[in-house]
Amino acid sequence: MAGFRVRAAQPGDCEGIMRLIKELAEYEKLSDQVKIGAEDLCRDGFKESSPFFRCLVAETVEGDQGDAGSMLVGYALSYYTYSTWKGRSLYLEDIYVMPEHRGKGIGSKLLAAVAETCLSLGCSHLQFSVLDWNQPAISFYLSRGACDLSQKEGWHLFRIFPDDLRRMTSNVTRPTSDPADS
Amino acid sequence: MAGFRVRAAQPGDCEGIMRLIKELAEYEKLSDQVKIGAEDLCRDGFKESSPFFRCLVAETVEGDQGDAGSMLVGYALSYYTYSTWKGRSLYLEDIYVMPEHRGKGIGSKLLAAVAETCLSLGCSHLQFSVLDWNQPAISFYLSRGACDLSQKEGWHLFRIFPDDLRRMTSNVTRPTSDPADS
Repeated sequence: MAGFRVRAAQPGDCEGIMRLIKELAEYEKLSDQVKIGAEDLCRDGFKESSPFFRCLVAETVEGDQGDAGSMLVGYALSYYTYSTWKGRSLYLEDIYVMPEHRGKGIGSKLLAAVAETCLSLGCSHLQFSVLDWNQPAISFYLSRGACDLSQKEGWHLFRIFPDDLRRMTSNVTRPTSDPADS
Repeated sequence: MAGFRVRAAQPGDCEGIMRLIKELAEYEKLSDQVKIGAEDLCRDGFKESSPFFRCLVAETVEGDQGDAGSMLVGYALSYYTYSTWKGRSLYLEDIYVMPEHRGKGIGSKLLAAVAETCLSLGCSHLQFSVLDWNQPAISFYLSRGACDLSQKEGWHLFRIFPDDLRRMTSNVTRPTSDPADS
């Protein structure tokens, strides 16, 4: 019978992680938004002097076949953020387990491993965003003690895309140490 | 007449930035949540080999008094995040201008400088969170082309605090490369 293990991702996992990222985006009905590929993940997570993220993977372990029979079935990708109220914190961008491997405790173990990372890094809390219709995920997080800050305090997430960013910069001078605009 | 300038923050600005952080938290009616001090900001933003954030400040410039007459009146603090769909992105944690210095274009200039930073770093977009009752801020961002992702796609922000993180880790083994849990 197959078991599973959770471990830190390696560069060689990027193709597999990318497959799972696309699956998750399809589940979230936003798959047209996936623009990066395995080579971007590899560069940004493993080749930079300051990696942009850290990633855990869950893989099956087939009895005595060792790694030969293993397959990535889930991942959890997170990175540092910074609260001006509480200092360094951790943001969980994605956590995902393939539908056919759910109900085995893999998601719980991934989240517990992220929690351990968060605590060991001295972070003040763990944050993440969930789509309001994704009730299974919301129930999962609430059962672990998560607090819905959007509901409790009223936070809305906003985004500005490059075209509008460029529009904003076109009418102003660069940030400067000279009082050029005084 | 006083003008203003926007520049990159320096370690010596941390006391002034902390004063503004507390003012903003009071405006957001959440001032009891501010737990860090100027020394934390200084360490995390300026002394780490990989700083946790980058910060711009706006300061007054008093005619021919030079720096002697300057005072910090606003700041914008941001950091890298990572989208598994679009790669590196920038998150604007705070942008603030003191009430008595509003209406002079300081907020616009700070936001434009953040936009320029975002573009120059090759980020796919700029994100930030706004409280739903803060209509002046929402109007300001919408006029700059921002999209309310919570309204459009249904994203809710969740947080898990250390006590619950510890509870999760107490029943599981550490992430490992051994199939100990298979």
